[in-house]
Amino acid sequence: MRQFIVYARKAVTGPDFTLDDLPGSGGRMDLVARCIANALWISHALRRDSCIHVVANGSPHPPIVISFYGDRLRGVSPDERNIAAWIKVALASKRRNPGIRIRKISFQQLIEELAAEEGSFFYLLHEKGRAISDVEFEPDAVFILGDHLGLPRNEEKFVERFAHEKVSLGTTSYLASQCITVLHYELDTRKNR
Amino acid sequence: MRQFIVYARKAVTGPDFTLDDLPGSGGRMDLVARCIANALWISHALRRDSCIHVVANGSPHPPIVISFYGDRLRGVSPDERNIAAWIKVALASKRRNPGIRIRKISFQQLIEELAAEEGSFFYLLHEKGRAISDVEFEPDAVFILGDHLGLPRNEEKFVERFAHEKVSLGTTSYLASQCITVLHYELDTRKNR
Repeated sequence: MRQFIVYARKAVTGPDFTLDDLPGSGGRMDLVARCIANALWISHALRRDSCIHVVANGSPHPPIVISFYGDRLRGVSPDERNIAAWIKVALASKRRNPGIRIRKISFQQLIEELAAEEGSFFYLLHEKGRAISDVEFEPDAVFILGDHLGLPRNEEKFVERFAHEKVSLGTTSYLASQCITVLHYELDTRKNR
Repeated sequence: MRQFIVYARKAVTGPDFTLDDLPGSGGRMDLVARCIANALWISHALRRDSCIHVVANGSPHPPIVISFYGDRLRGVSPDERNIAAWIKVALASKRRNPGIRIRKISFQQLIEELAAEEGSFFYLLHEKGRAISDVEFEPDAVFILGDHLGLPRNEEKFVERFAHEKVSLGTTSYLASQCITVLHYELDTRKNR
């Protein structure tokens, strides 16, 4: 199972945002949606071996963890508006999608939960990390990414208590959603070698 | 200069689509916007050495080539709705952005134009192409991608008249926008080796 965690500092935690302004009223919900799309979609299919947890820390009820599971998701398309619409519905507890889960837990609680799973291993995306081409990934990899503002230092320190490694995608600073695509690509390439 | 061409079979060629339904009324304008975002944006910056040409072949006035240039683009954000809004405005000839250009030319005319540029070399994304890890890219690479429906065979044949190579990203079929991210990543990695 490939898991991704995105720390979204401004992403709103209630349904009262407009789909017409995801960057503003959604607290960069556009960025969140792009991360989800790249974590779960490939051409004409969903990645059934992948899931993504978005830690939303914006108003009005932070923190909330929004998880999307590729093996159970139904009826969602990969465009930003549709993904955001499903998040809005889930935050309003209006309609259930078997592949979407909303929980009132924090980043650190999520990390503890995942760390308790057999074989889990955290990879922190970090500019000073080990070059990804040199990394042999553990099978149950959990990748941790910051948003456009980065991962707060105290959260990074918390992850360092568990089995982890810092990895780097090189000297270019990619968007979080692009990092997810590159990580999948690196894992796909290794798998098919 | 890195150039990308996306052949978008259904993308509309007039401004009468709604930003609230990019996949339907825009003819997969969501896909187009994602390709543009990944071609030109990185974290907190634009790729000034890159441009992307979208060949729109949907109704009402096909074909139209919509080009976005990273070195001249102003005031556009990377979310799908904003990019699509700028395309809508450009198709309506309402407001000019120095980084966006709309032309009434076909895929083949675009190919001829780019082929005439000194040193240009086409790379066709193709599942039976050469593994990308074995490819040494020419400096003035032009990458050609299909949309969710693929590149029509006759257009592929047309490109084969010029200096070109077919390249493959492996056995996973990525979204067109994800292919662009991976291509940039491969080029970035080579550059910094």
